[in-house]
Amino acid sequence: MSSTFGKLMRVTTFGESHCKGVGAILDGCPPKMSLSEDDIQKQLDRRRPGQSRLSTDRQEADQVTILSGVENGLTLGTPIGLFVANKDHIPGDYKAMQNIPRPSHADFTYQMKYGIRAASGGGRSSARETIGRVAAGAIAEKYLKEGHGVDIVAWVSAVGLIDAPDVDVESVNRLSVDQTAVRCPDHQTAEKMTAHITRLKEAGDSIGGVVTCVARNLPIGLGEPIFDKLEAKLAQAMLSIPATKGFEIGSGFAGARMQGSVHNDPFVKKDNRLGTSSNNSGGVLGGISNGEPVVFRVAFKPPATIKLPQETADFEGQSAILEAKGRHDPCVVPRAVAIVEAMTALTLGDLLLRQQMRCP
Amino acid sequence: MSSTFGKLMRVTTFGESHCKGVGAILDGCPPKMSLSEDDIQKQLDRRRPGQSRLSTDRQEADQVTILSGVENGLTLGTPIGLFVANKDHIPGDYKAMQNIPRPSHADFTYQMKYGIRAASGGGRSSARETIGRVAAGAIAEKYLKEGHGVDIVAWVSAVGLIDAPDVDVESVNRLSVDQTAVRCPDHQTAEKMTAHITRLKEAGDSIGGVVTCVARNLPIGLGEPIFDKLEAKLAQAMLSIPATKGFEIGSGFAGARMQGSVHNDPFVKKDNRLGTSSNNSGGVLGGISNGEPVVFRVAFKPPATIKLPQETADFEGQSAILEAKGRHDPCVVPRAVAIVEAMTALTLGDLLLRQQMRCP
Amino acid sequence: MSSTFGKLMRVTTFGESHCKGVGAILDGCPPKMSLSEDDIQKQLDRRRPGQSRLSTDRQEADQVTILSGVENGLTLGTPIGLFVANKDHIPGDYKAMQNIPRPSHADFTYQMKYGIRAASGGGRSSARETIGRVAAGAIAEKYLKEGHGVDIVAWVSAVGLIDAPDVDVESVNRLSVDQTAVRCPDHQTAEKMTAHITRLKEAGDSIGGVVTCVARNLPIGLGEPIFDKLEAKLAQAMLSIPATKGFEIGSGFAGARMQGSVHNDPFVKKDNRLGTSSNNSGGVLGGISNGEPVVFRVAFKPPATIKLPQETADFEGQSAILEAKGRHDPCVVPRAVAIVEAMTALTLGDLLLRQQMRCP
Amino acid sequence: MSSTFGKLMRVTTFGESHCKGVGAILDGCPPKMSLSEDDIQKQLDRRRPGQSRLSTDRQEADQVTILSGVENGLTLGTPIGLFVANKDHIPGDYKAMQNIPRPSHADFTYQMKYGIRAASGGGRSSARETIGRVAAGAIAEKYLKEGHGVDIVAWVSAVGLIDAPDVDVESVNRLSVDQTAVRCPDHQTAEKMTAHITRLKEAGDSIGGVVTCVARNLPIGLGEPIFDKLEAKLAQAMLSIPATKGFEIGSGFAGARMQGSVHNDPFVKKDNRLGTSSNNSGGVLGGISNGEPVVFRVAFKPPATIKLPQETADFEGQSAILEAKGRHDPCVVPRAVAIVEAMTALTLGDLLLRQQMRCP
Repeated sequence: MSSTFGKLMRVTTFGESHCKGVGAILDGCPPKMSLSEDDIQKQLDRRRPGQSRLSTDRQEADQVTILSGVENGLTLGTPIGLFVANKDHIPGDYKAMQNIPRPSHADFTYQMKYGIRAASGGGRSSARETIGRVAAGAIAEKYLKEGHGVDIVAWVSAVGLIDAPDVDVESVNRLSVDQTAVRCPDHQTAEKMTAHITRLKEAGDSIGGVVTCVARNLPIGLGEPIFDKLEAKLAQAMLSIPATKGFEIGSGFAGARMQGSVHNDPFVKKDNRLGTSSNNSGGVLGGISNGEPVVFRVAFKPPATIKLPQETADFEGQSAILEAKGRHDPCVVPRAVAIVEAMTALTLGDLLLRQQMRCP
Repeated sequence: MSSTFGKLMRVTTFGESHCKGVGAILDGCPPKMSLSEDDIQKQLDRRRPGQSRLSTDRQEADQVTILSGVENGLTLGTPIGLFVANKDHIPGDYKAMQNIPRPSHADFTYQMKYGIRAASGGGRSSARETIGRVAAGAIAEKYLKEGHGVDIVAWVSAVGLIDAPDVDVESVNRLSVDQTAVRCPDHQTAEKMTAHITRLKEAGDSIGGVVTCVARNLPIGLGEPIFDKLEAKLAQAMLSIPATKGFEIGSGFAGARMQGSVHNDPFVKKDNRLGTSSNNSGGVLGGISNGEPVVFRVAFKPPATIKLPQETADFEGQSAILEAKGRHDPCVVPRAVAIVEAMTALTLGDLLLRQQMRCP
Repeated sequence: MSSTFGKLMRVTTFGESHCKGVGAILDGCPPKMSLSEDDIQKQLDRRRPGQSRLSTDRQEADQVTILSGVENGLTLGTPIGLFVANKDHIPGDYKAMQNIPRPSHADFTYQMKYGIRAASGGGRSSARETIGRVAAGAIAEKYLKEGHGVDIVAWVSAVGLIDAPDVDVESVNRLSVDQTAVRCPDHQTAEKMTAHITRLKEAGDSIGGVVTCVARNLPIGLGEPIFDKLEAKLAQAMLSIPATKGFEIGSGFAGARMQGSVHNDPFVKKDNRLGTSSNNSGGVLGGISNGEPVVFRVAFKPPATIKLPQETADFEGQSAILEAKGRHDPCVVPRAVAIVEAMTALTLGDLLLRQQMRCP
Repeated sequence: MSSTFGKLMRVTTFGESHCKGVGAILDGCPPKMSLSEDDIQKQLDRRRPGQSRLSTDRQEADQVTILSGVENGLTLGTPIGLFVANKDHIPGDYKAMQNIPRPSHADFTYQMKYGIRAASGGGRSSARETIGRVAAGAIAEKYLKEGHGVDIVAWVSAVGLIDAPDVDVESVNRLSVDQTAVRCPDHQTAEKMTAHITRLKEAGDSIGGVVTCVARNLPIGLGEPIFDKLEAKLAQAMLSIPATKGFEIGSGFAGARMQGSVHNDPFVKKDNRLGTSSNNSGGVLGGISNGEPVVFRVAFKPPATIKLPQETADFEGQSAILEAKGRHDPCVVPRAVAIVEAMTALTLGDLLLRQQMRCP
């Protein structure tokens, strides 16, 4: 298990569904930054289950406590401990599944890798693990925003076959994103997405989706080639989120279809810097931020746990029908928006500190 | 700069275009493995420029020397030093570009990040840097293959808008891949790709493409959640390759369009293990290999350096026309096949050693 | 701040004196190991203040809670969260010292490094930080003992100028160590040490000491040259403990006085392995354990915070007299025994997992 | 094997006695620093064998080549490859020892750990490995000196029972150190040391010694508590050097004998900073540099390979007499001075970059 991410700004998460709680330690956060639990709670609230009809019906308050690293409202530069208690669960819902690993779920691989697994199945593969990331990410984001003016916004750009029309990456903001429960800033599309998810929830099925994210105002120079290029660390960060299957930056897979003469982003003078007139690069050149918005997309598969009966096999290889109990999300992307933002902030925060070593 | 990848099996690369040479140190390679320069050279030959009309006309032999770590044909368990000399270059080709950063190239960001850059522009962003990876990757691959029966094959699955039809991931092999210079195992498609690349080369333009890769016979249990999940480390590895813009595993972005009832891979008994009857997961569940083939795709943008004149700006922001000199690849994917395989082997080799700590 | 130690078995600690609490996350602990809070508490009890007249008069229960990673009494292989609440402190004792950095204490350097410091002065430099280490170390130790028969025992071998006579490293055990509050297994010497510490406590002064530690039954082969040699990681681990000034292994500084013909440890057959008839090497050859007991010594300086008035300067450089308030240890070594054992276990546990990657 | 040291400024070494050569990659060196092979060679010359009668009679030129990372005499910020060719050795000298592991040498543990070992026995445990460190350390030192005015000087303070009188850590310099082959700045003592070493060399024996090192002018604030405290990383760095058995900083083991009222270093105003009137702390408080000289001592055992016949056992446990052939150092400390300086520079260079991330 490898639960730490980052080199200078480092998050370490802990906790699974049925233990005392979940959380994180954020080490390397700069000192003298104002920080309260409210700063963190607002992102946890965007991640928590039970926010709307679109997510699981489980209600969890997910109140965060700062355990350490902050005194008189200021960070000390020491590790910030973050904790969210689990509610008492009766893990009965999972009993039926004890001998039948859920298809496309981590039950099977956790059992094979560790020779044991949590009552809730995948244990750390549970979405609850991401609470620690969102809490720590909210702090990284505050540092990026207040210290450097960096702005991170993610939104739902696709649910199943329903695509949101192009969103203006220069102006999209969280207010417009949060105006719909599905977190798509195009409100007409949001309605269609909502209807689609609702339908599938009722049918006991689930659906995938895409989250797009932009980071604006990033200083030029972030990213550490070769192996810690900005896009490489972002890709790792995103593919570490449960249920993700793909990552693309700038032109992405569409860029593979294009000619250089069309794809290249010409340089132009912009205010006091050299900018580009298009942004197929997605804000990175050679693994280093170039001052343009960093734009990327993350693919989420449909949640594996569905109510529809599934023909599969149990651990011994015997044919079996699985009818999952419990309350599960029919579509993860509305809640994943906060997770994508958190992992973005943690990635950029670390790379920013790494570039700052070159300051003098 | 962060030129090291891996935790237990670690590669560190060095070198840029116009210095003495390029290479790598592979530390953590298991001892008592037979190894010769030939084992490494064969992959370097698949990567080197000048192999065919499809790549740059530059001819470079790229002969590898093992500097250390091997005695009497056996690895010692100590760091393996790998070196490939650079030929004497006259960096004159780059003079014209000294004041005009190439659009969509790392000239600009290297200059901004480091305050200096190599005569060749991006320096370490040069494709030459990947020699060290391919050399080290060939060793990791040998270990995976001989020690564990793991089989890695990559191929070109798209060039521009030309897609190869579905290739059988269970049977595709390097022999069929290498039968065409474009490295597409579907030979009819390969012809079309070849014609397309040739046309664009003549036009002074370039084109993007997609490389697909499969790793077969991987032991169950590889991957270290949370942040070093198999797909997360693969994503980092792939996005660290020059010119990559996207990564997807299994169903990838298409999976975001699907319903859970369709996307889930049912378990079935396979020989002496539990397998799945479909593989939308791409061989990973919860970040851990499940015994099915690991299948992923990597998007490469069109090379930035093209002969066609481009309207852009110089470092001072003045409008300028760039006409790049020199001999550059019109399409990187045929040569990138060996690089994708190398980074796959380095990623899997490291995760395999990390899982082995759980052996007793 | 860099609060993580280890590569495969990794501890991350958090917390300072006046926050909610202190603790640690232990990631990489092997799965399926039985573990309860009692296993951990017994080492915390040996570390806690107020155990005897020899330590500070502060009484702190330091009860540990396992937050995660354990289910039904078994480890899951997931991160183990460990928490010990702080009691409500009135940080008034520290008010007097707000403008006068304590001589030989971290008040000054924390303020200079971070531009801020905790109410308690050094914050993370407080001995309370070591609670997380001792808790995590107790788990590492259980794994080493139950999984591999490794035995770790530390004891006080010197207080000021009072040295314990040579202790038999093959047989010394915690029972005999704990029979005296000063934790010296030679009970006659222990009495003298006790008298000396008591005298200095009454005088408002403090005294240094030495802790010796032995790890027995270690498998041959632990230690990762070059930079993670067994003795190098032990040295880092020990010098990371507050108040330490020196580390020596085997013959140590005395070995620098000797001739090779005397210092060399001849090999002899021992049971089913090759052993040595003397152990000047202290159980390591070339940074790798050789099967003999690993024996090392750690020097602790006298605690910096004393009641005796001290002539010094305040932060502005003005002459000042500091008379420290509060209740402080006159000698740290009796409590440090548990900390040395914990850091030893964390170091060896990590190196053992690292060697196990070579198993097949 | 773990051949990388440092987090932001990272050295990775490679090579053993009988391969093509030895060297290192230094990654993370700041860009735009002037650098030539001469800058590096001068420290290699102080480390190389055959400098004087006091070291081995082997003559090795150890000429360094910069493979990468430097263009037109300036560092690029990219990895600096460093290479020193091995001369052709006839490893015949080692044949006699093939079945008899040298007492107190790494022959035995390398064989046990890796199941194979280099012709030269310990392979990477050979002193030749340190060439890479000295080369990389020379660059780190240049950066510290030219960029920050930091001054590092090491010298021999003891050979066997012969101690140098206290040397003034504020004024000692390399010129005076290098005036004697034994590298002791007290020239009367140097003569005695020389005579002693010569006598033991003739007798076919060897002798241990102590190297003391000072780093002056270090900025306040270097060191990353908890686990990467300045003294903790120095201790790791020093104990990673072959033949070291101990490390102490400031008062060291003598400090364990002292009372707090005597040991504490009072603060006093010094120029524009707060300094201390004594330096028992050795320049660190709470793991962080305090602006005073960092002073530490490293104990080296006598070299294990001696000509005197030794009663020991072979790998099978049979009694055997070992009479080592070959030319070996009778005392390592004169040559170790450059190695201690190199590891000091690499440690401080890394911690300096880590502190600089806090710059803005």
